[in-house]
Amino acid sequence: MASQLNTSIPTRPQGGKNSTAEKLLIAASELMIERASIEVSLSDIAQKSGVNAALVKYHFGNKDGLLLALLARDAATEMSGLEYLISQPISPTAKLKLHIGGIIRAYYQFPYMNRLIHYLLHESSTEAADEVSKFFVAPLLEFQRRLLAEGIKAGEFRNIDPVMFYTSLVGACDHLFFGRHAMSRATGVGPVTDEVCREYIKHMEALICGGMLNGKEKGAAAG
Amino acid sequence: MASQLNTSIPTRPQGGKNSTAEKLLIAASELMIERASIEVSLSDIAQKSGVNAALVKYHFGNKDGLLLALLARDAATEMSGLEYLISQPISPTAKLKLHIGGIIRAYYQFPYMNRLIHYLLHESSTEAADEVSKFFVAPLLEFQRRLLAEGIKAGEFRNIDPVMFYTSLVGACDHLFFGRHAMSRATGVGPVTDEVCREYIKHMEALICGGMLNGKEKGAAAG
Repeated sequence: MASQLNTSIPTRPQGGKNSTAEKLLIAASELMIERASIEVSLSDIAQKSGVNAALVKYHFGNKDGLLLALLARDAATEMSGLEYLISQPISPTAKLKLHIGGIIRAYYQFPYMNRLIHYLLHESSTEAADEVSKFFVAPLLEFQRRLLAEGIKAGEFRNIDPVMFYTSLVGACDHLFFGRHAMSRATGVGPVTDEVCREYIKHMEALICGGMLNGKEKGAAAG
Repeated sequence: MASQLNTSIPTRPQGGKNSTAEKLLIAASELMIERASIEVSLSDIAQKSGVNAALVKYHFGNKDGLLLALLARDAATEMSGLEYLISQPISPTAKLKLHIGGIIRAYYQFPYMNRLIHYLLHESSTEAADEVSKFFVAPLLEFQRRLLAEGIKAGEFRNIDPVMFYTSLVGACDHLFFGRHAMSRATGVGPVTDEVCREYIKHMEALICGGMLNGKEKGAAAG
């Protein structure tokens, strides 16, 4: 069952960027990418980074603290990308499509991100899950709220509930990565390659924008 | 991290329905519903069912075996519902809408089903995950393949890849239940009630069928 680790969220050392902490995060992310798994030990991370294992404990408290700091680092990059996107002089529909591609590409480029989110939200401590909600779920939902309001105001989107929109878009993107492994076992579906990723972006853009019915059925569906 | 339990999938005792095994499954599902959690012990299940704890081991091997048998029982009910649905004299679009509602209602009525699937696919043994793929993922994908082919043939659906369709629909439905807990923490989103469930069904029907763009943008989106 889900292990309830007794984790306390470490406060980051004050004074801006910390090169030792950064080195550790870089080593952790590289190991996770190499192994295609978030199962890396603190001693592996210490060894790869050339940092004394005791310093891992000093900077992050424990392994969950390090995993949380790694996700926070990557989330910060993604969230600043969202700010940039919303400020662009393009239509809400064009922003929506770029956003869909952005979510899927982020999961693809950082395969450990999806697994980290699931682990921290569901298998680690309540405090870690709260942190992930605060720096990942809440800003993403807020971005989508603004984008939907913009599109509705411009007359491009129909009225759609932001929480339900968030749930279906994030769930659908997440499932390409989280659900794929299970599908590949019994159903002959292959792994997520570059091409699958590109095809899924096209699929999701078309589905979210226009649904799957041919024109003649659309009137009935909207009713 | 995910615990790799050393599970062997038990073969069911031969000779049709087994009332002791059924009693245990009923007790397990009732306990999970009462507690809104899949964290129930074998001794709790034995006590509630009035069956000797040694018989749990005899019938299911271990706890993962019992969880797998429980999911298999519920999956069998759902899969026979799919057979019934596909044979109905209604349009593919009407079947699709009933199917969307069916997935969301099944998760809502058996809240432990979603958690069981995640646990067995990702936190238990490879053998258990393979079994779930075989009796849950594969038949659901096969049903959707048939439904999509029917709708494309009838001219109601555009050409859509069944594996991508499965991924986005199941992911979006799953996330209402799996992702909600995380959202409620930091974002003030409430729990999944009867009303939320009904609203999400309407949302998903409209999104999957017609997307979210207003008419004037649809032509551009399809191109």
